[in-house]
Amino acid sequence: MPHTETGFQDFPVAAFPYADRLRRSQAEMARQGIDLLIIGASADLQYLIGYAGHESERLSVLVLPRDGVPHYVVPGLEAPLLHEQRDLMEIVPWEETEDPVAKTAAVAGPAALGTIAAGDELWSVFTIRLQQAMPRAHWAEGGQLLRPLRMIKDEREIALLAEAARRTDESWEEFLTTAITGLTEWEVRDRLMGLLAARGLDPVFCNVGSGPNGASPHQTATDRAIGPGDGVVCDWGGTLEGYNSDVTRTAHVGEPSPEFVRAYEAVVAANQAAFDAVRPGAACQDIDRAARGVLTAAGYGDAFIHRTGHGLGLSLHEEPYLVEGNTLPLEEGMVFSDEPGVYFPGQFGIRIEDTVVCTTSGGRRLNDATRDLRVMG
Amino acid sequence: MPHTETGFQDFPVAAFPYADRLRRSQAEMARQGIDLLIIGASADLQYLIGYAGHESERLSVLVLPRDGVPHYVVPGLEAPLLHEQRDLMEIVPWEETEDPVAKTAAVAGPAALGTIAAGDELWSVFTIRLQQAMPRAHWAEGGQLLRPLRMIKDEREIALLAEAARRTDESWEEFLTTAITGLTEWEVRDRLMGLLAARGLDPVFCNVGSGPNGASPHQTATDRAIGPGDGVVCDWGGTLEGYNSDVTRTAHVGEPSPEFVRAYEAVVAANQAAFDAVRPGAACQDIDRAARGVLTAAGYGDAFIHRTGHGLGLSLHEEPYLVEGNTLPLEEGMVFSDEPGVYFPGQFGIRIEDTVVCTTSGGRRLNDATRDLRVMG
Repeated sequence: MPHTETGFQDFPVAAFPYADRLRRSQAEMARQGIDLLIIGASADLQYLIGYAGHESERLSVLVLPRDGVPHYVVPGLEAPLLHEQRDLMEIVPWEETEDPVAKTAAVAGPAALGTIAAGDELWSVFTIRLQQAMPRAHWAEGGQLLRPLRMIKDEREIALLAEAARRTDESWEEFLTTAITGLTEWEVRDRLMGLLAARGLDPVFCNVGSGPNGASPHQTATDRAIGPGDGVVCDWGGTLEGYNSDVTRTAHVGEPSPEFVRAYEAVVAANQAAFDAVRPGAACQDIDRAARGVLTAAGYGDAFIHRTGHGLGLSLHEEPYLVEGNTLPLEEGMVFSDEPGVYFPGQFGIRIEDTVVCTTSGGRRLNDATRDLRVMG
Repeated sequence: MPHTETGFQDFPVAAFPYADRLRRSQAEMARQGIDLLIIGASADLQYLIGYAGHESERLSVLVLPRDGVPHYVVPGLEAPLLHEQRDLMEIVPWEETEDPVAKTAAVAGPAALGTIAAGDELWSVFTIRLQQAMPRAHWAEGGQLLRPLRMIKDEREIALLAEAARRTDESWEEFLTTAITGLTEWEVRDRLMGLLAARGLDPVFCNVGSGPNGASPHQTATDRAIGPGDGVVCDWGGTLEGYNSDVTRTAHVGEPSPEFVRAYEAVVAANQAAFDAVRPGAACQDIDRAARGVLTAAGYGDAFIHRTGHGLGLSLHEEPYLVEGNTLPLEEGMVFSDEPGVYFPGQFGIRIEDTVVCTTSGGRRLNDATRDLRVMG
């Protein structure tokens, strides 16, 4: 993966918000009755201390008590990487022949008799060993604890998400100037990821579904050669200082059928309806309903087989989820995808996805790559 | 990431070993007293069913009972990806507004009153929710269950590991023909990963430590420009059909000091001593002791700050671990790294790493890139 040189440092707020985030986590722990939070390598860790960690079979966890000083139980080999975090917490290194689970339990102290939240992505092997070492603890989901913090982005986070989105839009505009007839889906994927890398993003993923393959929202790419008559669904993104972009556009090779155009226009209208529904206080499910209503009215209700969107930030998928049943009200600073789509097995699929931030005055799109149907050669 | 076109299909054994692996897992469950195994997206899943899964906030798990038919609880969106697995198991799709944890508990049936093993890498958020849905179950580590199977590689697995190693060796030989003076560590990293991609491997990682940065075994790379007098530790690898390569070589820019040469030769000797100690029946810790004995005798005992090696296969790090305290006897078909190193903070580091397979007649190196000290421009 290429190195990210952002050259992007004009942030309106402090670039070292971690002491404050740890304090706010502790306040939330008090509110939720959590005595200890244990976080391994993950976006949660990146959010809390500015270090994403190194996921491996070696236990490496932030141990945050509700009151007092955080500890970081870390393999001795990894400890030197924690440069900037040394003032935030006590470093507890363990050597190759030591038992890191016992060290973690020792750091936990009396919290081992209370409620412990584990970071959502902590591997079960660590969760189960920690449970065995602290059998009297009650275990809770760390995600529910951190959700209220991570869900609301600060100005610097929004600036990074906007810049990642802008560069991803640029990659699409450049992509549209090229011919793709005869390329395989893998080659289109490589091209789009290369265009992200050329703009200083770390490419994370690119899913390409052409022709009938576009009807499966989660396929990656195949050896299928793209040709005239194909719709091409491209869903791709990368990170800037850990913050994700996530865009989908659907192009067409050669002239599209009236049936394709009609469905495309319905998806554009659904994307717009979801966007128009964004405002503080609207329930997440209302955004989903807005998009779904448009597609249902156009006769495509059964073809829209997934939720309308997901939050994004340091994780590609995070809270809030725009899905039926989620009554969480939107707030200023929430950032999420708006990505309705229609899927016709054996025929084609269409999806259009933008990143949207909720502001006091409604939605603000971070993407502005064209949503017009573009015909490629 | 580039697409892997292996063009490498002359395998001596069946390429669809999954029904057999599931049966052997069930036999191991019976032996260990495990009633149910739950495996999410991971190398474990790839090993068991030939599909690595799609790690996300959507629960997607193989549910394997000790007796009877496996089920796969999968998001409806992801279900179409399970082409080749349909004959192995029952597919249980869940839709966006359903509760996948409840579906999993329903599939578990009476096993919810017994012992359930969770795959080591299953996210804690799923582990904890499943524990809440099946509160009477006893929970165990899936890794201990699958370890006896995954640790012993079959012929096809060894052929893939050998081919991945060979291509990684080639990348080093080509790298050595280039000049690196003035490049940053990030640029060296990009170059080596590009050389892997050019040979059809999916590049996974490349850590580059130059000069004093070489003294930290786990740093990734930095903006430091490489110049005369620097040792350069390169540790990199990629995958071929999911199987990992993992090689370390240490080059030097310009003439090395006598001190560097002496340490380098000690590391070569330690790497060789570990290799020579490999045979069926030797304890894992004996391999570590062989390397450590050489470095200690040369006066470098304190500078060898990590274990001698780790298993590799579908995971970059897996059992067996070559570390003091591990008395597990080596067996034919085990594959692991042999990677002694010395680290002098503020000065330099040296590490040499090969992949080795244990055969009836002793060790067989899968890497053969030169272990001689090479001076680069």
